[in-house]
Amino acid sequence: MIEQQIKAAIRDIPDFPKPGIIFKDITPILKDPVLCENINSAFTEKVKDMGIDAVAGVESRGFLFGLSLATKLGVPFIPVRKAGKLPYSVNQKVYELEYGTATIEIHTDAFQKGDRILIHDDLLATGGTVTATSELIKEMGGEVAGFSFVVGLSFLKGREKIEPISDDIIILADY
Amino acid sequence: MIEQQIKAAIRDIPDFPKPGIIFKDITPILKDPVLCENINSAFTEKVKDMGIDAVAGVESRGFLFGLSLATKLGVPFIPVRKAGKLPYSVNQKVYELEYGTATIEIHTDAFQKGDRILIHDDLLATGGTVTATSELIKEMGGEVAGFSFVVGLSFLKGREKIEPISDDIIILADY
Repeated sequence: MIEQQIKAAIRDIPDFPKPGIIFKDITPILKDPVLCENINSAFTEKVKDMGIDAVAGVESRGFLFGLSLATKLGVPFIPVRKAGKLPYSVNQKVYELEYGTATIEIHTDAFQKGDRILIHDDLLATGGTVTATSELIKEMGGEVAGFSFVVGLSFLKGREKIEPISDDIIILADY
Repeated sequence: MIEQQIKAAIRDIPDFPKPGIIFKDITPILKDPVLCENINSAFTEKVKDMGIDAVAGVESRGFLFGLSLATKLGVPFIPVRKAGKLPYSVNQKVYELEYGTATIEIHTDAFQKGDRILIHDDLLATGGTVTATSELIKEMGGEVAGFSFVVGLSFLKGREKIEPISDDIIILADY
């Protein structure tokens, strides 16, 4: 039901961000407040018994449903940001991209050691950023309780990459 | 009440992002789900009679409470992003920064002509980005219904800059 609603809203953008890639544009979802509310409810229902202590959302699009989910669950939201954006002291993780590297950061006081953290992003592609996020969370003493995504692109094998970290992987609409 | 709660949560970060600036760090708010819910409720209460057709949130931190507000109001959310991030066809606005320029973009189909749009960001500083956003929205045929911010830094005169655009300016915690 929610999967069909999401897939009906998403549009394909050929050759973005580069030739040969068909990008799944989630922005039409944001135009439909009933669908947004249904997504919030679907996530909350699926994770409510997982014993989540906090939700970590990956900048920028992971901020969209990530904060709503944390607020509905009654737990803290942890912003995961690109290097240099978080103002307080941070822990960081450098990870490989197709070309070059990227760096993500989390505030040193964003959560307590032992906290069970749900990692959220809008879309699971190759899983590079959420894998780096999970490694950073574990280095900081947290536990990765699972992952949640609005959309998954299974042909990019992100699930295979993150399953060894946690097999609690929620994908509302999988391609 | 909400103002005191927000001010109690915010922390000052001296010399970020550069020497001499005292940055208001809103991330401790995100650790408190009751406060996040109170912020959502305060915004909704204040804007519910303004006849808002859509909420435009400015990347990245405007995505946090912006989508929640749009969902609660039952209206579309318009992501306002930096150049090159939105995948579909866009309209863009170049605006002046202290050094150099920046560019924001909105999808060409993000709203209908004549829509009354609330512009949301987490913090009102000099008002440069939200002024550019309001100009872009008007160029695209929209009407700026007002502005909402979690925090305002009145000494930076952002309010004076945006008042000529709309005097419906909601700031939950003003410094």
